[in-house]
Amino acid sequence: MISAPSGAGKTTLCRRVVAADKRLRESVSYTSRQPRRGERNNRDYTFVTADEFRKMASRGEFVEWAEVHGNLYGTSRKRLRDLLAKGFDVLLDIDTQGAAQFRRAFPDGVFIFILPPSREALRQRLEGRGANSKADMERRMGNAAREMKNYKNYDYVIVNDVLNDAVSGLRAIIESERLRTARVDRAWIRDNFFY
Amino acid sequence: MISAPSGAGKTTLCRRVVAADKRLRESVSYTSRQPRRGERNNRDYTFVTADEFRKMASRGEFVEWAEVHGNLYGTSRKRLRDLLAKGFDVLLDIDTQGAAQFRRAFPDGVFIFILPPSREALRQRLEGRGANSKADMERRMGNAAREMKNYKNYDYVIVNDVLNDAVSGLRAIIESERLRTARVDRAWIRDNFFY
Repeated sequence: MISAPSGAGKTTLCRRVVAADKRLRESVSYTSRQPRRGERNNRDYTFVTADEFRKMASRGEFVEWAEVHGNLYGTSRKRLRDLLAKGFDVLLDIDTQGAAQFRRAFPDGVFIFILPPSREALRQRLEGRGANSKADMERRMGNAAREMKNYKNYDYVIVNDVLNDAVSGLRAIIESERLRTARVDRAWIRDNFFY
Repeated sequence: MISAPSGAGKTTLCRRVVAADKRLRESVSYTSRQPRRGERNNRDYTFVTADEFRKMASRGEFVEWAEVHGNLYGTSRKRLRDLLAKGFDVLLDIDTQGAAQFRRAFPDGVFIFILPPSREALRQRLEGRGANSKADMERRMGNAAREMKNYKNYDYVIVNDVLNDAVSGLRAIIESERLRTARVDRAWIRDNFFY
C-alpha cells in the first residue's frame, strides 16, 4: 500500500517498479474524477460517474474507498482478489484515508509513504500540474501537509528526491518483505530439513 | 545480525554484501578456535586463547558470547560501539545462542537467518569442509538441524541457493530497513514540511 501527497511523484515511481517486477501488479482503481490528459481508461483508472461509483460502494464492491479533493477513489475487491489468486503481489496506490481502512482489512500488508524532497520541490511539482492561482496553491499545499502528517502510520518512508534511488528503495522493500519469516514457506523448510 | 548453520554459506555471502556497501561494516569477532586455512587474524576473527577469551568475558567486554562446537565466539562491545559511533551500520555474524542475547540487548536490531537450499546441499558443503567420517557427518548434520530450528525467531529468512540471489536479498533487507519509519529522520521531516 503506497500513499503520498499529490506532487510527490508516486505514480511515476510505482509504474517504474511494476514494469521491473514480474511478480508485482498494480490494481487499477475506480474513480469518479475526469481523466487528465494522457490518462487511459482501465490503465490509469477505471473512470465511472459519481453515481455508478456510489452504487458500487453500496454493494460493497470496494475494499476501501475515499473522497479526495471532491473526487471518489476506490479499490475493487474483485480485482484485488483475482490478482492475489493468480499469485501476484499487488501494489495499491491509495490515499491516507484508504490506508487506515486497509490496515484493518490487511494487518499484514506493507505500508509505504512517499515524501517529496522538500516543500519547495513539492510547490514546483504542483505548479507543473497547473496549480496557478495563489489561493489554489495554498489549498493544495495545505492538503499535502495534512496528508504528510500521516507518515508515522506507515512502515516505510521513501523520500523521492532522485527517482532512481526511490525506485531502488521501493524495489528493496518489496524484495525484502518477500523474505520475511512470516511469509516464508514453513512447510518447505520442515519437509526439507526436519523430517 | 546474521545466523546460519555451518555450511549455509554465510561467510561468503556477508563478505560480498559488505564489499558492496560503503555504509556497512562487519565487526570482527573474537574466537578461541584455531584459524582455518586462509583465515587471517583481525580480518576473519581475532584469535585468542580460551583463557584470554574467558578473562575478556568476565570483564564484560563482549556484547554476546557463546560456546559453539566446543569453541568460544564473542562480539566485542568496544568494536561494535566504535563502528556505530562512526555512523556505520554493522553486520554481525553470530550463532543462534548469541542472537537471543542480542535480541534483548538490541530489540530494534534486524535478525536474518540463512538456510542452505536443501539437506543434500548442506551435506555436500560439510563434506567439502572435511566432515569425512560418518559419525562426524551425523554430528554436524544434527547440529545444523538444531540450529535451523531457531529460524522462526528471526525477522527474515534467506535460502542461499544461488549466491547472487542471496546477495541481492540481503542487500534488499539492509536497504529497506534503512527506510523504516522508525529510523527516518523525524526532525528533518518536521523542519522540512511542518514548520
